[in-house]
Amino acid sequence: MSHTDRPLTLAEIQTPALVLDRDQMRRNIALMAQAIGRSGARLRPHVKTHKSVDVWHDVCAAGGTGGITVSTLAEAEHFFAHGADDILYAVGIVPAKIARAARLLKAGARLTLVVDDADQARAIAAAAQAEAVVLPVMIEIDVDGHRAGIRPDSAALITLATLIASDPALHLAGVMTHAGGSYGSSTAAARLAAAQQEASGCVRAASRIRAAGIACETVSIGSTPTALAQADLAGVTEVRAGVYTFFDLVMAGLGVAEPGQIALSVLATVIGHQAEKGVLITDAGWMALSRDRGTASQAVDQGYGLVCDVMGSPLGDVIVQECNQEHGIIGARAPGARLALDRFPIGSQLRILPNHACATAAQHAHYMVLEQNEVIGQWPRIGGW
Amino acid sequence: MSHTDRPLTLAEIQTPALVLDRDQMRRNIALMAQAIGRSGARLRPHVKTHKSVDVWHDVCAAGGTGGITVSTLAEAEHFFAHGADDILYAVGIVPAKIARAARLLKAGARLTLVVDDADQARAIAAAAQAEAVVLPVMIEIDVDGHRAGIRPDSAALITLATLIASDPALHLAGVMTHAGGSYGSSTAAARLAAAQQEASGCVRAASRIRAAGIACETVSIGSTPTALAQADLAGVTEVRAGVYTFFDLVMAGLGVAEPGQIALSVLATVIGHQAEKGVLITDAGWMALSRDRGTASQAVDQGYGLVCDVMGSPLGDVIVQECNQEHGIIGARAPGARLALDRFPIGSQLRILPNHACATAAQHAHYMVLEQNEVIGQWPRIGGW
Repeated sequence: MSHTDRPLTLAEIQTPALVLDRDQMRRNIALMAQAIGRSGARLRPHVKTHKSVDVWHDVCAAGGTGGITVSTLAEAEHFFAHGADDILYAVGIVPAKIARAARLLKAGARLTLVVDDADQARAIAAAAQAEAVVLPVMIEIDVDGHRAGIRPDSAALITLATLIASDPALHLAGVMTHAGGSYGSSTAAARLAAAQQEASGCVRAASRIRAAGIACETVSIGSTPTALAQADLAGVTEVRAGVYTFFDLVMAGLGVAEPGQIALSVLATVIGHQAEKGVLITDAGWMALSRDRGTASQAVDQGYGLVCDVMGSPLGDVIVQECNQEHGIIGARAPGARLALDRFPIGSQLRILPNHACATAAQHAHYMVLEQNEVIGQWPRIGGW
Repeated sequence: MSHTDRPLTLAEIQTPALVLDRDQMRRNIALMAQAIGRSGARLRPHVKTHKSVDVWHDVCAAGGTGGITVSTLAEAEHFFAHGADDILYAVGIVPAKIARAARLLKAGARLTLVVDDADQARAIAAAAQAEAVVLPVMIEIDVDGHRAGIRPDSAALITLATLIASDPALHLAGVMTHAGGSYGSSTAAARLAAAQQEASGCVRAASRIRAAGIACETVSIGSTPTALAQADLAGVTEVRAGVYTFFDLVMAGLGVAEPGQIALSVLATVIGHQAEKGVLITDAGWMALSRDRGTASQAVDQGYGLVCDVMGSPLGDVIVQECNQEHGIIGARAPGARLALDRFPIGSQLRILPNHACATAAQHAHYMVLEQNEVIGQWPRIGGW
């Protein structure tokens, strides 16, 4: 940051840099708050996208939130140190991580963990006993065969719930699922179907556990595409979502958002021209953009990102065609088409919309935060585990 | 790190973690030192792969080095602060970065910059004049149409060299090229041809500049595949390479190294089983492995990485099939084949060899360093720009 009193201008930012349009982010936050507010559930925002206490404060300011979701214990520790006391660690836990979880619990955090296997539950119970803590756990439910979890109608669900309920080192807090399959839903109807399957599968799992005489208070679902799909959430107590704060080209490709709603971009400087090929080279390579190619399998392949002018307006069919570590090669999307390079002098700046906001943000240690395209501050984000 | 006196064991490392086999790394460093030593050129190691002063010290210990290559000014500042005084910043420079370059020059660094365009050269000369420094610059030569640079036989080369030589704010230090196209060379013969093209193109550019009456001292070439190809380097003064310190699956896929020579891996813990699919889930997702899929276009697609036992021995055709942010899905390479999951209990550890060492290492803030599979320390790496 500048050491003068006046704020930095965009032109003064050392590139490549991660730029956050706070005005747009607040509109995205309001959109989700409205969507969840209508459902009667609470929002448990996932902080894995932004990993920023400042962004989380803006999420909370819109109301309707209850606790946070994290993807690492490092996030749990950081956000707890900054005032978050109700934390769901939404990745399967293993015994080697229980000592850290126990430290958070003993410090007063309401930390909930996730299991989907009886051997796993027994192993973490033993570790919890050694640490003299009772672990609140949720059972992960698999509603779409996407990744982890137990099927809502399986016998294993009741076996695991019974095991947890009868172990004094564990407390069954509820059930949770993530409709990761919704990232393949490219129509509103398909997203609504995925959302209904997500909600009904998780509610069904909770009902079966309760029918077995075991308390199951929390029913937690969520993904950005399903959370915005306006499904019937009767029986669902909370919804988790994260990427909606920024949105990205993958979400735009699914129809969940417009490119103009994307609040995150990478500011880059033109460092070279290749006149024969009609392409230009910037200082934003994969180190700044990430290697994520999430739009490669969508109807419109955005390369390594969609190129905007320095104020953030998309230039049309101009994309980052290829990346090296610190070089991004920008050209026309249409094969063989050439850019008019005099529109992009060496030293001029561009902004690049990311395929996947979580991946691009992870390449940076902080956000340069804009309001009305003026830099109002620099917000740190954390990494690691 | 543990606060006890004894070193950590692998089982005590919180996962996911970046693990560096220092014994293997030293063998890789010795291999390159021998290859370059025979050529008569000096090695200017690229630090962008490891971004670690400790790794650089091991590179220097093998001898034959002269200066370093960096991909960001942040690397230049960090390594200068730790004793490197001869630094080539091998990415095209723009006026907005000259103030930082000037600070390094005024502090005593022998920092050399790269240009490939007359407008660019004029613009940085103006910025250098404002900072009251003379900028040593090299002209980037394009030997294979890969990315940046000027063709060795072009008229533009002599125009640019003349412009630089006649500008009091610039000093022409030499010519440099990077045979990035060699990453597509999958036979030893193709790599040798790429290496000869790289050397002869850069030497030819230097000869043409000298024939125009302009001094051109340094002739700098390099990439890991070409540096190990044993081309005739007559006229070349220095060779740049970086990824050879660690090697990776992309290099193995090209035949430049064996998988057993890869010194870098990600330590992961099994966090779940999906018995129906015969796959297991670990806590090393793309946040720990990167989104790099560099082997996707090679003869053997390694997914997001090749899976090893905890001691680092490859398990055969077991790969990371898919990644989410903090979940890695591990299964058999052959479609439809299922793993015997009882070989991989929940809580057990695995190691994953990376597609692209630069990208995987960039996801981590430090290395857990092993000698004979015992942790001897934790080495920091830097990021950012």
